[in-house]
Amino acid sequence: MRSSYRPMSVKARTVPALTQDDLKKLAADKAVEYVKSGMVLGLGTGSTAAFVVSKLGELLKSGELKDIIGVPTSKRTEDQARQLGIPLSVLDDHPKIDLAIDGADEVDPNLDLVKGRGGALLREKMVEAASEKFVVVADETKLVTGLGGSGLAMPVEVVQFCWKYNLVRLQELFKEEGVEAKLRVDGDGKPYVTDNFNYIVDLYFQTPIKDGPAAGKEILKFEGVVEHGLFLDMATAVIIAGTNGVDVKTK
Amino acid sequence: MRSSYRPMSVKARTVPALTQDDLKKLAADKAVEYVKSGMVLGLGTGSTAAFVVSKLGELLKSGELKDIIGVPTSKRTEDQARQLGIPLSVLDDHPKIDLAIDGADEVDPNLDLVKGRGGALLREKMVEAASEKFVVVADETKLVTGLGGSGLAMPVEVVQFCWKYNLVRLQELFKEEGVEAKLRVDGDGKPYVTDNFNYIVDLYFQTPIKDGPAAGKEILKFEGVVEHGLFLDMATAVIIAGTNGVDVKTK
Repeated sequence: MRSSYRPMSVKARTVPALTQDDLKKLAADKAVEYVKSGMVLGLGTGSTAAFVVSKLGELLKSGELKDIIGVPTSKRTEDQARQLGIPLSVLDDHPKIDLAIDGADEVDPNLDLVKGRGGALLREKMVEAASEKFVVVADETKLVTGLGGSGLAMPVEVVQFCWKYNLVRLQELFKEEGVEAKLRVDGDGKPYVTDNFNYIVDLYFQTPIKDGPAAGKEILKFEGVVEHGLFLDMATAVIIAGTNGVDVKTK
Repeated sequence: MRSSYRPMSVKARTVPALTQDDLKKLAADKAVEYVKSGMVLGLGTGSTAAFVVSKLGELLKSGELKDIIGVPTSKRTEDQARQLGIPLSVLDDHPKIDLAIDGADEVDPNLDLVKGRGGALLREKMVEAASEKFVVVADETKLVTGLGGSGLAMPVEVVQFCWKYNLVRLQELFKEEGVEAKLRVDGDGKPYVTDNFNYIVDLYFQTPIKDGPAAGKEILKFEGVVEHGLFLDMATAVIIAGTNGVDVKTK
């Protein structure tokens, strides 16, 4: 289910319509305003986060920002940041992060999130949980009234060993939400393998998850589950770009 | 700290002394008495569990046991069972197990365990948690008054990504117990890699863990921790072989 923040019909507008990429870029630019020189920054993964990394590269180059260190949440982001000349580190060397900026797949009214459709959920969660502030950037299509409500995937990272056993257990756990659990496959139909050599079980809900915190705990209780895509009580601000402008939501 | 179940001094005995292997075999034979024909069995990993698998092989061969299916907890156990002609399956196909039998590294008075020094903790926990009954076989040197009290390793399986970050967090978590956290390495000094492509951080406690259930929950909260070696409230019986005979403890 989408919230009432649905984008206006393009035909109803007289000014040139903003594309989804325009909206993502708007949100990214706004988020980068939170960045100060000298910060250790968690760098997210995904199309919106890529706009953030790109903007950081520009500001470093122009000299507006200095002495920032980026902690990337995926190999993809690491590659992009390196090409832009952003100094990089890892949690091992920088266990405390000042600010993380990342996209989200779903944002609910409580600023709880579904993330990880890009497959980087574990590294994202490690980095963002280590961040003093976590700013989420999203376009308005990501707003939901309840997590799982978009009808798109909520990912769960599981070890390869007996993945089917865990898939069935996840299916059972969310029986009330009418869940369909599927092993994620890549283009060749082979199981998708994460950066940590695990598989991903994608959960598709017919109705939103009733109790997010309880669901998160129950999922983690399953032996062989490594992490899940519910990011609860983690975001300090969410920047939503919509056809009516940019909106900043805080708790 | 060892419990008061310390083996008697060998010199004090007039009959031939039982070796630790003799004791393990005694416990294994006793445990196999729980097995009935037609059962789906979880097969543990380690030196004591190997005696159990060996005995099962004998009983199958002699015809005393029929139609058992084994679900092994490691490649090593799988190889041993296959050689003995024990029919095998996996949790994916047999998600409900009648009885699991496995060794333990520590057994406390509450029948809570430390396991996984052999590196198979995750698969062991998956299989044993899926078992209606879980019988532990051990010799009396494994008895402790509190978990972690043997001074030997309590293993935590972590993803390779930023393992050092998690090692430091684990060290902090058990500061009160005077823990020393070490990455497990193999013979070549390279990090030991589990069957699930993860690393193991071994925790060595100066004093036993104060609150096992709380510790278990806190460890699992760390993103990037896959599983830990505390097996709490899982054992239905523990068979302890000592120089004074075999003792069966149940809750």
